[in-house]
Amino acid sequence: MSTDRVSTGATAGPRRRGRPAKAVAATDNTRETIVAAAATEFARDGYDTTSMRGIARSAGVDPALVRHYFSDKADLFAEAIAAPMRPDLLVARALEGPRDQIGANLVRYIVERLDEPGTSERVVAMLHTALGQEFAAKMLRQFVIREVLKRIATELGDDDAELRASFASSQVVGLLVARYGLRIEPLASASQDDVVRRVGPVVQWHLMGNPLP
Amino acid sequence: MSTDRVSTGATAGPRRRGRPAKAVAATDNTRETIVAAAATEFARDGYDTTSMRGIARSAGVDPALVRHYFSDKADLFAEAIAAPMRPDLLVARALEGPRDQIGANLVRYIVERLDEPGTSERVVAMLHTALGQEFAAKMLRQFVIREVLKRIATELGDDDAELRASFASSQVVGLLVARYGLRIEPLASASQDDVVRRVGPVVQWHLMGNPLP
Repeated sequence: MSTDRVSTGATAGPRRRGRPAKAVAATDNTRETIVAAAATEFARDGYDTTSMRGIARSAGVDPALVRHYFSDKADLFAEAIAAPMRPDLLVARALEGPRDQIGANLVRYIVERLDEPGTSERVVAMLHTALGQEFAAKMLRQFVIREVLKRIATELGDDDAELRASFASSQVVGLLVARYGLRIEPLASASQDDVVRRVGPVVQWHLMGNPLP
Repeated sequence: MSTDRVSTGATAGPRRRGRPAKAVAATDNTRETIVAAAATEFARDGYDTTSMRGIARSAGVDPALVRHYFSDKADLFAEAIAAPMRPDLLVARALEGPRDQIGANLVRYIVERLDEPGTSERVVAMLHTALGQEFAAKMLRQFVIREVLKRIATELGDDDAELRASFASSQVVGLLVARYGLRIEPLASASQDDVVRRVGPVVQWHLMGNPLP
């Protein structure tokens, strides 16, 4: 088990820098210690207030070590809550494509990811928790606002971009709940192409006001 | 408490037909017995399979008595799950208005209702339960499909109306989750007018393909 985890780690391969097996095991534990500390800090203080530095302090490790394992706070957050997908990365990828395809691309990335076995159950479980516990809702809300909506707003640039992004997020969240949580038919069994065709333009309109087809 | 409940009941006023207090109390108990039996039946068999007649049998009362208290199965269901709003009635009301205003009217009815104190908490609690328990999800799903989507489809008439209605429901559910559950800003604090302006056209487009403004 431990060997598997180490050998698939991006930065902790067993033969890296010729370290002995013992040191590798210690490194692996360090990563777990950081993730555990992050989970505690995020749950207690929310996403906004928690810092990489504070997590390092709580884990009793050097901040540089935290940055060695995790590229940024969003990365560490996703790991701490065992997130099955990274909405911030999906959005960043969609924003890199053609402007008039952001909605369609984002919806396609989401359904492709969520239709994979085992993924949607974890997303639904996360939404279930967030709807039942305010601290979980707060974490998720702050993450979404900070890492998704504000990034979109910065990219789009106009005054009401964050408001529009938050309405776009309502259609995306509704798609997740209706298709994977409540499984409302015929939507739940609709093809990915159908979902992209029917939800993509809505996300696009929410975000940028493009006319619907 | 008991007096309050009786005196506000639509069909069980204490002076109705000059019945003595004892008979009124018995009637009130009958109603409660029916609701309790309904809750059990719906939870066990789901919305579709459960019938008014089966509930009467389970409650040990005459089916006519069930119909005396509850106009239809949707009415009894709403009571059994203590629903804070009746989506089927809101939809029926929206369908009565101008065709090109169905989306805007429906969204307005929903936010007016949900912005009332105490209402949204119960809707969020219901969604929370449905995302955590399959039998609750099944009940809600069957109710939504049967009493909301199929009614819209019948009213609109075209071939893919039910598919389109299910996508419209995803935007409505997403609005509920984002505004009242996760409370994603700035959407959560947006005015009712703003919500109607930004979500109404989407529901309209999902339902009927009207161009977005």
